[in-house]
Amino acid sequence: MPSMKAAIIGFGTVGEGVYKIVNEKKEQLKKQTGYTIEIAAVLVKDVTKKRDLSPDIVVTDAFEDILNTPDIDIIFEAIVGEEPAYTYLSQAIEKGIHIITANKKMFAKHGPALLKHAEFRNVHVGYEATVAGGVPIIRTVENLLAGDRIKRIQGIVNGTSNFILTDMRKEGVSFKTALQDAKARGFAEADPTDDVSGGDAFYKLMILSSLAFGNQPEWKKVSVVGIDHIQADDIVEATNADFRYRHVADIRKNEDGSITGKVGPVLLEPDHPLYNIDGVDNAVIIETEYLGALTLIGPGAGMYPTGSAMVADLLHIIRQQATELILN
Amino acid sequence: MPSMKAAIIGFGTVGEGVYKIVNEKKEQLKKQTGYTIEIAAVLVKDVTKKRDLSPDIVVTDAFEDILNTPDIDIIFEAIVGEEPAYTYLSQAIEKGIHIITANKKMFAKHGPALLKHAEFRNVHVGYEATVAGGVPIIRTVENLLAGDRIKRIQGIVNGTSNFILTDMRKEGVSFKTALQDAKARGFAEADPTDDVSGGDAFYKLMILSSLAFGNQPEWKKVSVVGIDHIQADDIVEATNADFRYRHVADIRKNEDGSITGKVGPVLLEPDHPLYNIDGVDNAVIIETEYLGALTLIGPGAGMYPTGSAMVADLLHIIRQQATELILN
Repeated sequence: MPSMKAAIIGFGTVGEGVYKIVNEKKEQLKKQTGYTIEIAAVLVKDVTKKRDLSPDIVVTDAFEDILNTPDIDIIFEAIVGEEPAYTYLSQAIEKGIHIITANKKMFAKHGPALLKHAEFRNVHVGYEATVAGGVPIIRTVENLLAGDRIKRIQGIVNGTSNFILTDMRKEGVSFKTALQDAKARGFAEADPTDDVSGGDAFYKLMILSSLAFGNQPEWKKVSVVGIDHIQADDIVEATNADFRYRHVADIRKNEDGSITGKVGPVLLEPDHPLYNIDGVDNAVIIETEYLGALTLIGPGAGMYPTGSAMVADLLHIIRQQATELILN
Repeated sequence: MPSMKAAIIGFGTVGEGVYKIVNEKKEQLKKQTGYTIEIAAVLVKDVTKKRDLSPDIVVTDAFEDILNTPDIDIIFEAIVGEEPAYTYLSQAIEKGIHIITANKKMFAKHGPALLKHAEFRNVHVGYEATVAGGVPIIRTVENLLAGDRIKRIQGIVNGTSNFILTDMRKEGVSFKTALQDAKARGFAEADPTDDVSGGDAFYKLMILSSLAFGNQPEWKKVSVVGIDHIQADDIVEATNADFRYRHVADIRKNEDGSITGKVGPVLLEPDHPLYNIDGVDNAVIIETEYLGALTLIGPGAGMYPTGSAMVADLLHIIRQQATELILN
């Protein structure tokens, strides 16, 4: 049986999730793909921190050490922010290494370039974990694209915002209190700006746009509004009128071929499919020519959901690779 | 570029949907798979009926003619009921032909045998369309199984029953009136027994059980209740108490390895993920070890949704085949 060597760069919650799943499900992965998957190297911020890792794994804070580890086939990237992630992944592709990323900010901007580069170097890029965590939205859209046409995608793609809006409604608290609650429960970062300002949802929307429509709208033409200006009174008023605020990202391809996107809070009626999505869940509605609408709902973040999305990418890459070897 | 020859057996709504999609999306399919897909033969009930089919297609009411059409690679089966569908598909597999079926009654009973037979003959079986029409539940469960573990699947998998329950609630009508309404709108068969008695949902549940758990519970130990005994008053009472009746199929693997299934109407509270699923939509909740819960909602039936599920199976089979050629 063949084997595959992987490295994980960025060993926070998501990176560690990948490590755990690959190890816990070693036998299952072998059965499914034919490959034994071995994590050979890990890029960390602090090499002195004690970690529960197998002793034969290269643990380093220098990306060159990862690139110099012999025979790395694939890199899982779970770093936050554009750089150095983009540079690292470009170098990996250039070396003929497949990449799997969870980094939405980087991928919204550099995804199209990375995909082109990867095509040229004949390697694959997995990015299921960049949008809606454990919800297999990228794979589902890809599958639909094969024999259908996507018209519109809309959804709740930021779990932090949705938790805060839910908390404000259910507990009757202010935005500030709900944000503190989210932080206390691990649902918001120390700096939650990207989440509550709509930036995070915007990045995810741009990734979906590139995938579904082959293009993104001009970024500055997309209205992006967060939830940070919503008052406790607004929520009470909405609830009394039987509406709910949801933070929705929405992208559609118009009849003339142009693409329109927007991100912001909207008031929804009880029979809207996003009305009932509470807490940190994500929900995405895909409208297509043949299907009508398909809705996917699930955990938008977390160690295991996001990690398992990245492992699912690995399986898909192994299959894609095999398909191409046959056809070429 | 290689090409693939397909036959469609059973040319009702679903079979015709496959024909249309394969033709409308020929270029897209070629780009995605590398294969040109050609429908070479169609098995119909009445050969004298005028159909809008390309003149070089074999149109026959004898399955031997299908088997004798040279170089058929794949058969789409959209017949209703166990026989002759099972016999036809067994013969096709024996001849080394891949099969894609939408026939839940047949597949619930004979699926495990067909899958074994196919494995032995080195061909593939697609059955996405047997459960929840255009909702890609089979593919999603398969993908999850690779690196996760399924604990429970529950959902609304019979669109006819859900339409009737919705109609009774919204219009305040009796079961009988709602059933007539469903028939008038094309959401119920002339003989709706399987739908309203829970039989159809039961078949789908057994297919999901085989896939998710590798086994089915003993059929006679599964409680199957339909919606045909629900009175207009029951619905009013439930609505007044802020509950809703939904017809739910539910299967789980217990700690001791046993499998428990049940099918029947249940009363749901407003925050239950199935509470808001109205009309002919299907919705399935998959509970796993890593993800928590993933919910898929979409059209449970219809020419294009079901047809596109079968075409998606074709793409998947082409990819699977390529993967195996590499690994063996």
